[in-house]
Amino acid sequence: MDESSPALAIDIGGTKLAAAVVEVGGRVVTWAQVPTPRELDGEQVWRTLESLVGRVLDEAGRPASASLAGVGVGCGGPMDWPAGIVSPLNMPAWRAFPLRSRLQEQFSGVPVRVHNDAICLVAAEHWRGAGRGKDNVMGMVVATGVGSGLILDGRVIEGASGNAGHIGHVVVDPDDAQVCGCGARGCLEGIARGPALAAWAQGQGWRPDQPGATAKELAGDAAQGHPIARAAMRRAGRALGIAIASATYLCDLEVVSIGGGLSQAGAMLFDPLHESLREHTRLPFARRVSVVPAALGQSAGLVGAAALILAGHRYWTGD
Amino acid sequence: MDESSPALAIDIGGTKLAAAVVEVGGRVVTWAQVPTPRELDGEQVWRTLESLVGRVLDEAGRPASASLAGVGVGCGGPMDWPAGIVSPLNMPAWRAFPLRSRLQEQFSGVPVRVHNDAICLVAAEHWRGAGRGKDNVMGMVVATGVGSGLILDGRVIEGASGNAGHIGHVVVDPDDAQVCGCGARGCLEGIARGPALAAWAQGQGWRPDQPGATAKELAGDAAQGHPIARAAMRRAGRALGIAIASATYLCDLEVVSIGGGLSQAGAMLFDPLHESLREHTRLPFARRVSVVPAALGQSAGLVGAAALILAGHRYWTGD
Repeated sequence: MDESSPALAIDIGGTKLAAAVVEVGGRVVTWAQVPTPRELDGEQVWRTLESLVGRVLDEAGRPASASLAGVGVGCGGPMDWPAGIVSPLNMPAWRAFPLRSRLQEQFSGVPVRVHNDAICLVAAEHWRGAGRGKDNVMGMVVATGVGSGLILDGRVIEGASGNAGHIGHVVVDPDDAQVCGCGARGCLEGIARGPALAAWAQGQGWRPDQPGATAKELAGDAAQGHPIARAAMRRAGRALGIAIASATYLCDLEVVSIGGGLSQAGAMLFDPLHESLREHTRLPFARRVSVVPAALGQSAGLVGAAALILAGHRYWTGD
Repeated sequence: MDESSPALAIDIGGTKLAAAVVEVGGRVVTWAQVPTPRELDGEQVWRTLESLVGRVLDEAGRPASASLAGVGVGCGGPMDWPAGIVSPLNMPAWRAFPLRSRLQEQFSGVPVRVHNDAICLVAAEHWRGAGRGKDNVMGMVVATGVGSGLILDGRVIEGASGNAGHIGHVVVDPDDAQVCGCGARGCLEGIARGPALAAWAQGQGWRPDQPGATAKELAGDAAQGHPIARAAMRRAGRALGIAIASATYLCDLEVVSIGGGLSQAGAMLFDPLHESLREHTRLPFARRVSVVPAALGQSAGLVGAAALILAGHRYWTGD
């Protein structure tokens, strides 16, 4: 390996497993993904990942670990960090799975680093995306769950247990009728995560004959002008605006970048978001925050995982 | 001066000006305070401060700046930082007042450092109070205003414009009828600051014949069992619990210390606070946060100002 070697990046989520070879500058050279296996045990999921990684390295012409700068991994939490022993909420097959050490056996001689997917997202946006050149950035994911990573005063914030950035459980309306998966009332995630939003719309009479209709279908109907679907998007946008206002006041943020499936809904989501954000940020310093869709879009997770290696002095504070 | 020299500490607030000589270990050797002058111009306020400082130094037997390690100052915001040009909201006489350079003229040859009072509070509690030995601490003031300072991953957080820690404008109930001084609805400060709380109680029928009754009187009546006064304390406690839950999730805090006048109301305030905090912190990592009255009580501001000098490597990131 030399200083210009690329990194292997891996992104582990409840919906898909993705892998890529990423150049020093942040460009994704080659990548592939597979649906996250269901009904398989932990070892079978590991072999699925091994095979995906092998395919990507072959395509990039980098079959040997010696030709890599290292392996960076973003994974859903919770995890034991920096040990990289992972138990992703949405992947029951992996409970206390020693992901970092298993990868280290495969890629001996180069660094292997595993971090929360939200940290990877904010690292990506800070390194090569919407937060470039800024010192105070929140990178959010709005999808099946709602989470974020924080960079404050130019440094990744870990918090007491590596859980800083849990914006999904910031309270946006303590009297809201909808109960979050965590058991509390009025959490951002309880209102704005895709499945909660679809459930709310169904409660209002949207697609009554199709139980289990998805947030993607909801966004599609909203784009067609369906009044309940549009109200659902306003509800999510308003909740996001309130939570971002609170985070901006508390952390004095410059940039908030929003990725994840629901963020692709565009103005239907961002217009009410900006409206409630303006309503709740009156002091001049808070007014300056810029809230934008994630510049790196769906590749942010992979680019951020690569940043743990290629810009590790900025984004990796573990061992 | 030698390494064991004490610091001169100054705390500038809308209610009082305070000064102290503080030893290396954080002990307040001698101190004095005067009410913040009203009806005086900026220079007259400056001379009041000069005379207060002179008195404290005389009493401590340290009349010469050469015998001091430096001068640390906590002051209400906003300010131009680290230049120390201050315009405290509650002190109209000082607008763009060059506090740091004026003090530097008086105390040449030793460092003079001015920071926000909320930063000083959290520095004090982290250095010598309830947050000692912890890396993720929020120090709050609940009084005429509601504010905080943050230490995350062991470092003071400044934010984009030195305004991190504005928990007073975290949204706790977007549908609340009370409008905050900032113009928004549902801010913590708009509900829990002393004057807002007293105004709310008066709206409910408390002390109808005494317009302008104070939060201190309200807390006194609550202690006597007055039902509206007790409801007001529950209202403030609930709002504080919600905002602290949100801050804990976002910043993964270990300790929140609460100082300021209203925090002296004890269980009447802290019981509903803990109740709403529990209601809104369900995930195990957030449950671990400890919310306590400020260990340093009313001297926290002075101890924190001294910490800018006596532990400057930890609490001062300015020039």
